[in-house]
Amino acid sequence: MASGTLLYAQSGGVTAVINATASAVIQAARARKVRVLAGRNGILGALREELIDTSRESIASIRSLAHTPGGAFGSCRVKLKSLDEDRAKYERLLEVFRAHDVRWFLYNGGNDSADTALKVSRLAKEFDYPLTCIGVPKTVDNDLAVTDCCPGFGSAAKYTAVSVREAALDVAAMADTSTKVFVYEAMGRHAGWLAASAGLAGNGPDEAPHIILFPERPFVEKDFFAKVRATVERVGYCVVVASEGIQDGSGRFVADAGGGKDSFGHTQLGGVASHLAGRVKDELGYKVHWALPDYLQRSARHVASKTDLDQASAVGKAAVDYALKGMNAVMPVIVRTSDTPYRWKIEAAPLSKIANKEKKMPAGFIRRDGYGITDKARRYMEPLIRGEAPPPYGQDGLPRYVSLKNLEVARKLPDWEG
Amino acid sequence: MASGTLLYAQSGGVTAVINATASAVIQAARARKVRVLAGRNGILGALREELIDTSRESIASIRSLAHTPGGAFGSCRVKLKSLDEDRAKYERLLEVFRAHDVRWFLYNGGNDSADTALKVSRLAKEFDYPLTCIGVPKTVDNDLAVTDCCPGFGSAAKYTAVSVREAALDVAAMADTSTKVFVYEAMGRHAGWLAASAGLAGNGPDEAPHIILFPERPFVEKDFFAKVRATVERVGYCVVVASEGIQDGSGRFVADAGGGKDSFGHTQLGGVASHLAGRVKDELGYKVHWALPDYLQRSARHVASKTDLDQASAVGKAAVDYALKGMNAVMPVIVRTSDTPYRWKIEAAPLSKIANKEKKMPAGFIRRDGYGITDKARRYMEPLIRGEAPPPYGQDGLPRYVSLKNLEVARKLPDWEG
Repeated sequence: MASGTLLYAQSGGVTAVINATASAVIQAARARKVRVLAGRNGILGALREELIDTSRESIASIRSLAHTPGGAFGSCRVKLKSLDEDRAKYERLLEVFRAHDVRWFLYNGGNDSADTALKVSRLAKEFDYPLTCIGVPKTVDNDLAVTDCCPGFGSAAKYTAVSVREAALDVAAMADTSTKVFVYEAMGRHAGWLAASAGLAGNGPDEAPHIILFPERPFVEKDFFAKVRATVERVGYCVVVASEGIQDGSGRFVADAGGGKDSFGHTQLGGVASHLAGRVKDELGYKVHWALPDYLQRSARHVASKTDLDQASAVGKAAVDYALKGMNAVMPVIVRTSDTPYRWKIEAAPLSKIANKEKKMPAGFIRRDGYGITDKARRYMEPLIRGEAPPPYGQDGLPRYVSLKNLEVARKLPDWEG
Repeated sequence: MASGTLLYAQSGGVTAVINATASAVIQAARARKVRVLAGRNGILGALREELIDTSRESIASIRSLAHTPGGAFGSCRVKLKSLDEDRAKYERLLEVFRAHDVRWFLYNGGNDSADTALKVSRLAKEFDYPLTCIGVPKTVDNDLAVTDCCPGFGSAAKYTAVSVREAALDVAAMADTSTKVFVYEAMGRHAGWLAASAGLAGNGPDEAPHIILFPERPFVEKDFFAKVRATVERVGYCVVVASEGIQDGSGRFVADAGGGKDSFGHTQLGGVASHLAGRVKDELGYKVHWALPDYLQRSARHVASKTDLDQASAVGKAAVDYALKGMNAVMPVIVRTSDTPYRWKIEAAPLSKIANKEKKMPAGFIRRDGYGITDKARRYMEPLIRGEAPPPYGQDGLPRYVSLKNLEVARKLPDWEG
């Protein structure tokens, strides 16, 4: 039995498969007889000394994590600042780690989390505390540097492509006498990865989605209207997929154009889809519908991608392996070794190359006219949504998602006054 | 070979399984060597003499209809009025039927369609034209009289319960530092069936959904706020499911309270979820998110209910059987013969008992406090979402939905000037 404890924590927006990573981490550590604690609500659990004892969970529960969406131990939206600005927090982390003999810290998140893991590793070195820090990739935004793709993205992309294909069949059937324009709003404030994934639902100009709006391209309303009208006249209906992050030529978010106050002075929450739908109705006179799947798109474990699930598990397993080898300040990343057939492997990459960096969608992924994806994008994304991995269902017709006990170990330190 | 042609048409909002009914109709008719034409865009196809020759489709395509959502021949939102008011249209229908030797008319829709089928049967009798009219049930609204449930509802209900359960896991994981209130908007302008189905996702006051808002109960904002606050304080977060049709005490749709014009004078399309989310944010100060799945909920064949699929097929098969037996002006309905184990059978019911009637959700299905479902509702709905029937997926990671050729037979009549 390796001496010491491994601390695992989830960070940022959760995904359909982040718990599959947790499952792999815990199973790999158990196989090596390493105790795993998990931070309740991510790094906050470490700061507050709210540490979940995963050894209290049955192996069946830990295995079931692999098919359970959400974040089983809780996640958080907290970004630690620089070592100077947030020094007290970083020192508190080390204090908690020391109290519980934490020798390995696995932080499962995006580029912020990679940055935190890197800073913690530096402080540990400064204090001569023996600690190995590993960043474990996760984000539906697919915006981490170095790695070919991010666990969580493939499943959200599959949800998006499947949902858009299905809704498009509905619209096609009704367009003659009902809705002619349908707008689907995809997550992605900074990059159009999820909007792009909708492009996998169809092929060619007459197949839905007919228009994809990317945050990478300025939104020009007049062009958009012309494109919608031409599509309705040619195809009979028009399916639009809009990234929540689209901006007009002056860099203003289109989502902020909608919203404001309603006629009663109440806050009217906006959104790109509702705004575009309203504009299309006003300007073109078509009947419109719109959908905002919101959290559904990142929690839809029922339609997860097998590729994504496999990769989420693989990074968890590799993270434990790297940790126990003492490979400090690295992240297991996905390396694509072949497009056809699709092949990938896991490698270690330095956190310094990933921390705080944001990978943009390559310009070559967006069609020249700005309203669709290229073959290159298709070749990149299609393997990521490949394969099905449905959860087991119960007699009640619902997926059997596990709830953990999440019992904490006894505290050893005074309350944190963060 | 029976002499004559069977005309099948789809009507109203499509569902995840209406094509399974079409598939069953065509296969049953083929087995009896009866030719099937399908109206392009429902009854409009019959009026316009746009009749699709289903014999041009391969058996593989017809079988694939069973796992393809949407309406394969097109549907429509057209309600024929009384025989007096719309006499020209009814007579035109008979004219087209006569021209193509249509002896059996199967109209797949809701209570409007049942009414149309009934009226057509009466006119045929008046004109001494030998025609058997069958209504075939379909609606995600589950509001048809006589039948225990409606094909289409079970799959939409399963989508709803699964989606709410998944999103709730996401919210639970993030609530400590992020979204505390999540609002999901379910279809159902007149009845809360789909909102109610979300109740299957959890059990007891602390499991999501914590609040369901039904159109059957007046929406009282103050009570709602108190309930949301109490839930957040007790559970840490609150998942709300709101039917699009909820109304305040004076019968005004809450959805109409939102919307109006934004600060640029553009139409701001409303919606219950966005309105409630804005109000919760304003009044309680919680971070909120909301989802509007819209057409996704009625086209999600990927998560269809096996029970629903079986019933959709069964009514199609029975409809052909009744038609060929000359059982005029009836609908095959679903009769529940046992709750535990769940058992059902198909019986013929007179269209006169179904036409234009709307079945409300029984009062005993809504909890006394008005914010959840009862055990009785659970016993009724749970079998309807039971069982999985995923579509086949392709190598591209997407369901293999079929596109028909939809070739029309040659017209025999002059253009319709409807």
